[in-house]
Amino acid sequence: MNYFSSDFTLGILGGGQLGKMLLYETRKYDIRTIVLDPSADAPCRIACNNFEQGSLMDFDTVYNFGKKADVLTYEIELVNVKALEQLEKEGVKVFPSSKTLRTIQNKATQKLFYVDHEIPTAPFTRFAYTSEILPAMEHEALSFPFVWKSTQFGYDGMGVKVIRKAEDLNELPNVECIAEHMIPFKNELAVIVSRNVSGEVKTYPVVEMEFHPEANQVEYVICPARIDESVAQKAQEIALKVSNAIEHVGLLAVEMFQTEDDHILVNEVAPRPHNSGHYSIEASYTNQFEQHLRAILDLPLGKTNSKLAGIMVNLVGAEGHFGDVVYENIEDIMKMDGVTPHIYGKRETRPFRKMGHVTIIHEEVAEARKIAQKVKETINVISKNN
Amino acid sequence: MNYFSSDFTLGILGGGQLGKMLLYETRKYDIRTIVLDPSADAPCRIACNNFEQGSLMDFDTVYNFGKKADVLTYEIELVNVKALEQLEKEGVKVFPSSKTLRTIQNKATQKLFYVDHEIPTAPFTRFAYTSEILPAMEHEALSFPFVWKSTQFGYDGMGVKVIRKAEDLNELPNVECIAEHMIPFKNELAVIVSRNVSGEVKTYPVVEMEFHPEANQVEYVICPARIDESVAQKAQEIALKVSNAIEHVGLLAVEMFQTEDDHILVNEVAPRPHNSGHYSIEASYTNQFEQHLRAILDLPLGKTNSKLAGIMVNLVGAEGHFGDVVYENIEDIMKMDGVTPHIYGKRETRPFRKMGHVTIIHEEVAEARKIAQKVKETINVISKNN
Repeated sequence: MNYFSSDFTLGILGGGQLGKMLLYETRKYDIRTIVLDPSADAPCRIACNNFEQGSLMDFDTVYNFGKKADVLTYEIELVNVKALEQLEKEGVKVFPSSKTLRTIQNKATQKLFYVDHEIPTAPFTRFAYTSEILPAMEHEALSFPFVWKSTQFGYDGMGVKVIRKAEDLNELPNVECIAEHMIPFKNELAVIVSRNVSGEVKTYPVVEMEFHPEANQVEYVICPARIDESVAQKAQEIALKVSNAIEHVGLLAVEMFQTEDDHILVNEVAPRPHNSGHYSIEASYTNQFEQHLRAILDLPLGKTNSKLAGIMVNLVGAEGHFGDVVYENIEDIMKMDGVTPHIYGKRETRPFRKMGHVTIIHEEVAEARKIAQKVKETINVISKNN
Repeated sequence: MNYFSSDFTLGILGGGQLGKMLLYETRKYDIRTIVLDPSADAPCRIACNNFEQGSLMDFDTVYNFGKKADVLTYEIELVNVKALEQLEKEGVKVFPSSKTLRTIQNKATQKLFYVDHEIPTAPFTRFAYTSEILPAMEHEALSFPFVWKSTQFGYDGMGVKVIRKAEDLNELPNVECIAEHMIPFKNELAVIVSRNVSGEVKTYPVVEMEFHPEANQVEYVICPARIDESVAQKAQEIALKVSNAIEHVGLLAVEMFQTEDDHILVNEVAPRPHNSGHYSIEASYTNQFEQHLRAILDLPLGKTNSKLAGIMVNLVGAEGHFGDVVYENIEDIMKMDGVTPHIYGKRETRPFRKMGHVTIIHEEVAEARKIAQKVKETINVISKNN
């Protein structure tokens, strides 16, 4: 198919920030795009050829939208899978496929998939309801503390909680869930694997998520990860094993733990451009959004190496600040060499709301890390009236 | 002023490919944008917040459009300068200023400006009409061959012709023009100088335009230029001198000749993102479009160094091909490491029409040059039905 012609249309389900960054890349190849999103103010609205407002979970809405596309992709996992299945039957190319989405959309299914394919992951038990956990603890190999996860998809740690005592369970919704052994780990790592329709595969370097020592939040995504070459190689091999098992088309971001004794355990995956790959816009030969596009359009994959070391810092709303956003001292970080802010265009800030990200590039990762810290200490996402 | 708020609006005169690439960068900073262009199909249409169709040369149209902007810029020099002057008087920030545009919009004025400021440039004579050249040749220091240039702005060598004998003048329009001495040169070089409202200045590295040995067309733009360090330094100094004299805000692309005896002569300038800076999207710490934006919004300028060597190849329509465009073998060039095509989205090709460009990046400029040649030999911009 000739993607570089006006006859071809790419459909995107979800019109958020990821979709927006994907749309920039479609412009580079002059690909006609349509976007569906429930919000009239979706960031993608001004970056696509046609925007439709509608629910991503409604069968008819997704189906009717998808019929207008030659290739359909999504920037969010919460979409109507049945509609995707129907569209596939009728010849629309859906990437990642409904099958991939079914595998990962439910966290219990995703974990069972790892077990079936001998992919290392933390031991866990599935429960139909949260209320079944306590009674089962007597005869299951499960003890405090453990990690509770809702099987339904959530973002940014929502739907995940460390349970240290029986009372901690009281605050949780009574839904399908898993209880996962808590494994002490040294590092949280991620590898993005890209695979095009023809089966060409390329992996990005291993990145490291550095957490804030007190707040349990990723503070820096660092590429390359500051780990031993042998561990990096193991992480890449396991990410590739997951990718081969899932047989996704497009990107697959594989999040992993490096345990105290240097084993790699798969935590979870996302079949799309991912926060852990934002550094690639400035640092990689081929950024993750371009790569996703190349993959789903069955174009040759681009080189995944880095030009330079890259670090990504999330810009989140400061505590105690609500309302019209101000990026305090943004000019000061723009003075620093190799620093690029990405502002997502949300008008209102809230504590910990993801408002943007900043990329720092440098020849040396240690130097980039120092600048990243200065960035973090300098910029404040606050509200006008506080 | 807080550019990162919904109260601020950036206006762009001209909605072509340069404007489109500038608009990508405005999204990174979430800046509200409006665009004016005479064509309903302007590439910018789908990348800005509001698009208006109208003439860039009509006083009222430009004035009324400009009144809606806090900062106004342009991607093309052919705009109504009087309207810009009026807008400036009424407090709209116009960058580059109407004064800068007046200096460069007429090529005779531009050349006289170089003479006044002791900036080296090829000797020339101004004529009110082309018909005055021949009668004047008897008593002017002018002999065949010389370069005829219309003083009114033209793109891509239009309005420029080498005159070898009296008859060559017959084909030319009878307009205000200059006759310039033909100086044998080794290299054509360019330096982009950026300057923000506060006066911060940063120059990009010297790039080299490699011409096709037969066709008189730029084939490769190469960064860094493969010239002696001393020549590069001289070129940068002269570009900076031009920039300081013009006192532009935004980018100034300074095109220069390196003569046989290594003198530098200024050829002409453009006060905007420029074809010679397209390599910067992939190769530079800060690409030229982001830099132009930083400059006109008075933000700190970004680092202008390169991450890697970069070469830009123009994609122009093949001879003998007219109509619906096909990018033959585009998949083959996408297989090559560090190769990124940029397709401008023009539906119809014509011989030598600029349809896009391709960037090649590599650690070594010599290696990049080899890949660039392979790119050039592989991709063909042809029409469907030829």
